[in-house]
Amino acid sequence: MNQRGRFITLEGGEGAGKSTLLAGLRDHLLQRGVNLLQVREPGGTGLGEAIRSIVLDPAHPHISPESELLLMFAARAQLVRERILPALDAGQWVLCDRYVDASYAYQGAGRGQPAERIAELERWACAGLKADLTLLLDLPVATGRARAAGRGEADRIEAEADAFFERVREAYRSRAEAEPRRFRVIDASQSADNVLQAAIAATADLFETAA
Amino acid sequence: MNQRGRFITLEGGEGAGKSTLLAGLRDHLLQRGVNLLQVREPGGTGLGEAIRSIVLDPAHPHISPESELLLMFAARAQLVRERILPALDAGQWVLCDRYVDASYAYQGAGRGQPAERIAELERWACAGLKADLTLLLDLPVATGRARAAGRGEADRIEAEADAFFERVREAYRSRAEAEPRRFRVIDASQSADNVLQAAIAATADLFETAA
Ligand SMILES: Nc1ncnc2c1ncn2[C@@H]1O[C@H](COP(=O)(O)OP(=O)(O)OP(=O)(O)O)[C@@H](O)[C@H]1O
Ligand SMILES: Nc1ncnc2c1ncn2[C@@H]1O[C@H](COP(=O)(O)OP(=O)(O)OP(=O)(O)O)[C@@H](O)[C@H]1O
Ligand SMILES: [Mg+2]
Ligand SMILES: [Mg+2]
Repeated sequence: MNQRGRFITLEGGEGAGKSTLLAGLRDHLLQRGVNLLQVREPGGTGLGEAIRSIVLDPAHPHISPESELLLMFAARAQLVRERILPALDAGQWVLCDRYVDASYAYQGAGRGQPAERIAELERWACAGLKADLTLLLDLPVATGRARAAGRGEADRIEAEADAFFERVREAYRSRAEAEPRRFRVIDASQSADNVLQAAIAATADLFETAA
Repeated sequence: MNQRGRFITLEGGEGAGKSTLLAGLRDHLLQRGVNLLQVREPGGTGLGEAIRSIVLDPAHPHISPESELLLMFAARAQLVRERILPALDAGQWVLCDRYVDASYAYQGAGRGQPAERIAELERWACAGLKADLTLLLDLPVATGRARAAGRGEADRIEAEADAFFERVREAYRSRAEAEPRRFRVIDASQSADNVLQAAIAATADLFETAA
């Protein structure tokens, strides 16, 4: 029988370096012999990618905050059931680019949806699945936006004002404070290599508890 | 200042005759001088129609019940805020082809999502909006399916087994029993003209309370 895999989520504002870190962390874990599934949110399933294309589409500028929250959880409910839980059950580790913390930060603090509403959705839509480790890439908003600007046209959420992203950053930081065992906050203004080393150090515990 | 409009929803299983009735009822209300908005669920907004095309697409055969419920309410939250509430506030009457009762019947009784979960979504996603009158077109499942069969390929939900639609029918009927003031159950095995006459009779009260 396989031992259950570990579930690692990456969080942070726009341009914090999640995708960059994911690539390096994946290589590290593969080298250590971990069998790995890498997914992103919203997306990661046929349904989720269809939802992603709706929710990030600048052609829907007036999506209500309630609808945005529901769409994010619709994609997440599918991702958890169709891919993440089966992988963990089969002993794979799962690396996920954003997970529920992103809804507390973006749809909650960013768009004003109450945290209890999100917690209730988390309970039933995510089948109780929590991350074993959440790497929060923390970065001043302006730095992240400057980095992300290199990538061409902003999607519907990237087009928000700085105050929105300040609320997002604060929400992430306070979630990390409230759950220090699950979260590791990484100073994302460091070089990409230093960020990767910090992330690698943070994952060491997961090997120990898995042993 | 305008008087607030009336909100009428049409419910019933596949092929019960909702779309047929809607056309006749619209003509009647227009003749009585009612300023009318007609919408359908899921849909009725740019976002909602995009969600509709996902949720009814046979290419997504394995949408989880949780995701389906969340998608239906994502479309509904947008429809209520973007179109229905503004219309009612402006004094228009709104005729809607399916509304929240359909989620209790299809995602609840049909797919097994708990009613309290749906009630909680109804509270915040629908901004508290309840129908003034719900016309339930009640019909044996086999009759409805035979009628609907004339329309070509089944969508993802129409492709369900009879037992699914029996649960849907029962859920609709018990909701109607529980809220007899809001619901009017119409025997949909009658001729389309008799169904329309019954619906017209049911709307008479709305003019009185509006007077
Ligand atoms: N530590 C770093 N120092 C400097 N630049 C970085 C660092 N990490 C990533 N970058 C660069 O910043 C940009 C954004 O990085 P990346 O796409 O990884 O961020 P992200 O968090 O995935 O953004 P998004 O939330 O938009 O997906 C890229 O051009 C990337 O090369
Ligand atoms: N009272 C009736 N008697 C016989 N046939 C009817 C009656 N009402 C509608 N029909 C026919 O049954 C078929 C289904 O009707 P309709 O499309 O109005 O149902 P519906 O409830 O809107 O179905 P759906 O839930 O799939 O949208 C159509 O071919 C329509 O002409
Ligand atoms: Mg990224
Ligand atoms: Mg119809």
